[in-house]
Amino acid sequence: MKFCSECGHPVRWSKVAGDDRARFVCGQCGTVHYQNPRVVVGTIPELDGSILLCRRAIEPRKNWWTLPAGYLENGETLRQGAQRETMEEACARLKELQPYALFNITHIQQVYFFFRAQLVDPDFGPGAESLEVELFSLEDIPWAQLAFPVIEDVLQVYCRDVAGGTFPFRELDVSARMHT
Amino acid sequence: MKFCSECGHPVRWSKVAGDDRARFVCGQCGTVHYQNPRVVVGTIPELDGSILLCRRAIEPRKNWWTLPAGYLENGETLRQGAQRETMEEACARLKELQPYALFNITHIQQVYFFFRAQLVDPDFGPGAESLEVELFSLEDIPWAQLAFPVIEDVLQVYCRDVAGGTFPFRELDVSARMHT
Repeated sequence: MKFCSECGHPVRWSKVAGDDRARFVCGQCGTVHYQNPRVVVGTIPELDGSILLCRRAIEPRKNWWTLPAGYLENGETLRQGAQRETMEEACARLKELQPYALFNITHIQQVYFFFRAQLVDPDFGPGAESLEVELFSLEDIPWAQLAFPVIEDVLQVYCRDVAGGTFPFRELDVSARMHT
Repeated sequence: MKFCSECGHPVRWSKVAGDDRARFVCGQCGTVHYQNPRVVVGTIPELDGSILLCRRAIEPRKNWWTLPAGYLENGETLRQGAQRETMEEACARLKELQPYALFNITHIQQVYFFFRAQLVDPDFGPGAESLEVELFSLEDIPWAQLAFPVIEDVLQVYCRDVAGGTFPFRELDVSARMHT
């Protein structure tokens, strides 16, 4: 951020009285510009013991496999956002959404929120941001070709929970490890 | 938003090719300015069957009772934010934080995430944004003097869960009802 979105004058990075940290503050109109983490909503779509993955058609990580997920938009609930992203990326309809896991990714200012959900039917296919969409049994998850650490993390937890037969809500952190 | 935060030129509200909704877009440098819901983290601090509430020292809803809560900051996890807000508003330390409930408040672009938690000790008191901080038994919750609908909602669910003896994770919506 270089300019004030309210008056167009340059901002400076400084502390305001009563606040405990620096913010972008307008030198002209005094507006304080707060910046906060963004919420990403995603789903683990299930059908007969398999899960749906999408191969990305866009950067970053084009050609790598991922779960349907994207930024929560203003005016929608988490589950509405999760359903919208699943429709956009996999042309798939969901039912029985269950809150499942939340991942803090502090180094990129993101909070991921995943639902487990059932596919309404096997009628799905690639949306504009996907090259292909496929069901994978848990034994066949392409671990070495997953797009992001958070996808690897949530699927590891998920496979353990499937094995254990219970799905407690999880709040976890994603480390800043590199892709391998 | 009236001006581009990258170059200072006026923005316009318009749709970009490939996107499904209008955004603020810079007429000069083309930057698309995405706007997304903000995350508020809060806690239900417990001690010996009572819960901690804060009477607000600031607007909105000055003098009304609330749970410790505030915006998640960049670089912190949800539980770090929840602990920070509880320290700031109630000078209270928490342990045993458990993810408890998520509330969509779509009409004000907020997502509230609450933890249940235990007070480390009865050593607490008003921070800069509180007039007083008190423990209330569930029978004595000041329902008619709660600051916000989301606080009323989460405490109603909480009282039912205490009665039932289980605390499943909840994802709920807060309606746009007026304060009564």
